[in-house]
Amino acid sequence: MKVVEVDLGDRTYPIYIGRGLLDEGELLRKHIPGKTALIVTNETIAPLYLDRCIKAVTVDGRVKAEVVILPDGEQHKNLEVLQKVWDKALECRLDRNTTFIALGGGVIGDMTGFAASAYQRGVHFIQVPTTVMSQVDSSVGGKTGVNHPLGKNMIGAFYQPRCVLIDTDSLNTLPDRELASGISEIIKYGLIRDAPFFEWLEQNMDKLLQRDPEAFTYAIERSCINKAEVVAADEKEGGVRATLNLGHTFGHAIETCTGYGAWLHGEAVAAGTMMAADMSQRLGWIDAELVQRIRALNERAKLPVAPPPSMTEEQFRNTMAVDKKVQDGKLRLILLKGPLGNCVITGDFAVLALEDTLKAFCSK
Amino acid sequence: MKVVEVDLGDRTYPIYIGRGLLDEGELLRKHIPGKTALIVTNETIAPLYLDRCIKAVTVDGRVKAEVVILPDGEQHKNLEVLQKVWDKALECRLDRNTTFIALGGGVIGDMTGFAASAYQRGVHFIQVPTTVMSQVDSSVGGKTGVNHPLGKNMIGAFYQPRCVLIDTDSLNTLPDRELASGISEIIKYGLIRDAPFFEWLEQNMDKLLQRDPEAFTYAIERSCINKAEVVAADEKEGGVRATLNLGHTFGHAIETCTGYGAWLHGEAVAAGTMMAADMSQRLGWIDAELVQRIRALNERAKLPVAPPPSMTEEQFRNTMAVDKKVQDGKLRLILLKGPLGNCVITGDFAVLALEDTLKAFCSK
Repeated sequence: MKVVEVDLGDRTYPIYIGRGLLDEGELLRKHIPGKTALIVTNETIAPLYLDRCIKAVTVDGRVKAEVVILPDGEQHKNLEVLQKVWDKALECRLDRNTTFIALGGGVIGDMTGFAASAYQRGVHFIQVPTTVMSQVDSSVGGKTGVNHPLGKNMIGAFYQPRCVLIDTDSLNTLPDRELASGISEIIKYGLIRDAPFFEWLEQNMDKLLQRDPEAFTYAIERSCINKAEVVAADEKEGGVRATLNLGHTFGHAIETCTGYGAWLHGEAVAAGTMMAADMSQRLGWIDAELVQRIRALNERAKLPVAPPPSMTEEQFRNTMAVDKKVQDGKLRLILLKGPLGNCVITGDFAVLALEDTLKAFCSK
Repeated sequence: MKVVEVDLGDRTYPIYIGRGLLDEGELLRKHIPGKTALIVTNETIAPLYLDRCIKAVTVDGRVKAEVVILPDGEQHKNLEVLQKVWDKALECRLDRNTTFIALGGGVIGDMTGFAASAYQRGVHFIQVPTTVMSQVDSSVGGKTGVNHPLGKNMIGAFYQPRCVLIDTDSLNTLPDRELASGISEIIKYGLIRDAPFFEWLEQNMDKLLQRDPEAFTYAIERSCINKAEVVAADEKEGGVRATLNLGHTFGHAIETCTGYGAWLHGEAVAAGTMMAADMSQRLGWIDAELVQRIRALNERAKLPVAPPPSMTEEQFRNTMAVDKKVQDGKLRLILLKGPLGNCVITGDFAVLALEDTLKAFCSK
């Protein structure tokens, strides 16, 4: 088992990574201080892992587990569905010392975390991520929330878990498309701050696609280390943390405009990253060879390298205008600059480059 | 103008108290860092104070103000109405550097604070309380949230404002019933920690009921000082802060069971305080004379001293079981103990005393 610490002072917490950890009940229970827990999962994950999770929580009789099962998919990541969690918690009379456990992918983690942050103004929270996407990115760092019809993740909280438990065996049941979606965020760490990792990915992408356990454990650990370092430096995203959003501003526009759930998050981020790379090249900040390497790696991972043909420049402009990185009316983007592994967050770019990128990727 | 500081490290903020402060735009604007603000108010307050508030925010042209007007009353303090705030903010494309301003009573303050805490995972927040209740209690200390059909304030956040601006002139437009409701929380400070203030209230209640500005300014300042001291010692209610909930566990049961809005919050707290005092006396913790003094002061303030006749013991038991102070299944209450000005928070009491109190105050 590997352990990565997220260093946040008195809210420091461990990420456990290893095979079969879901059956290590003690590991889970030592982070549950009260006598009750609420496991939040979805219809897809429940038949696969819910029984094991309940057993891990309750086996020694100290903790009682309640369960709420939500519909699966980004299109259900909204306030209406979130209310079911609070309804269940209140029906079961769970008190302020209870622990909410997110068992599932990024959507379940984000929703459960926000539910935990607001239930009785904050209860304990544990992440048990079951997808690559959630294991390498969304379960770490405390960003929680739900979507609004006008923008992704617009309602939420910064709320840290007490631990993250990653059972790498759960990848065995993950559909190929979900696997690729998660790999998109893994590639991101290489691009923004870890050139050797990007090179390792170029050499080991086939192993990841074949779900080689050793390669995946390494990729998850390396991703978590990168994320933990960034989050420890800037928990509330006053600066460097925003770089984790490479490709996300374009990507969020794709997710919002195509309807939540049509594209997986990582798919949208992959296309968004290609747009950010294209724009960076137009600004003269990176060379064509790097753009080509990113495209090649995405293609090997079977990730999209452009937005859906239906999307218009106007749709991008409108959706990006409400991005959370907009500051006093000015759009800021994460762009690549310099050799592989370097990026900037900036609102200081030639608007023409953005316009040219939108033109290049959109039909009208 | 009086200034009371709420000492919370790097989130320390001032409470300004004085006549005509709503026209002191500079005071307000220096706590608005961005270029936009969203004023949240209700249908009752808008005709009275909205224009002045907009003027104070926008007069020098630096800040643009948007407005959302909610329906008035505790029965509208729910997630459905809260969404209107987020809808408006997103329609106006307000970014993460915006400031939400609560202009109104406790319901508006609690809802706006929670809306600010969750909008884009947190934007700036200012309280402009216009009722006694919100000026002496709910606007100070960062408790925000909305009600759930199964319990009061069950969904929310601890989220501190950047400042609280109390224009004592706003009391001139307050209905008598609302005035009395706020006085209920003023009396509370005397009971739990400030015996000289309770005695001052016994001597000056008539002045308060006549809305004497000098007496009211003193009562508001003294209340804010008491609240600020408690909040600074225990922001997240791990201990002493719970004492501010004297009478609230019984009171919340009254509010939940009679339907939100039928009783004003302070009215329910007054009746709840009488029940807590009665129980404290049954436990032998305070003498009958103190119970009588509390009853006399509440009666002079025209506050109820018992729950509505329709309420049953069973309703109290069920609603109190989901109180936020319940810990691992055990109900904890704030009870008076010792001479005037002393209280305890405890789950360690003879259950029979609680049963006897419920019997004494309920018809069945």
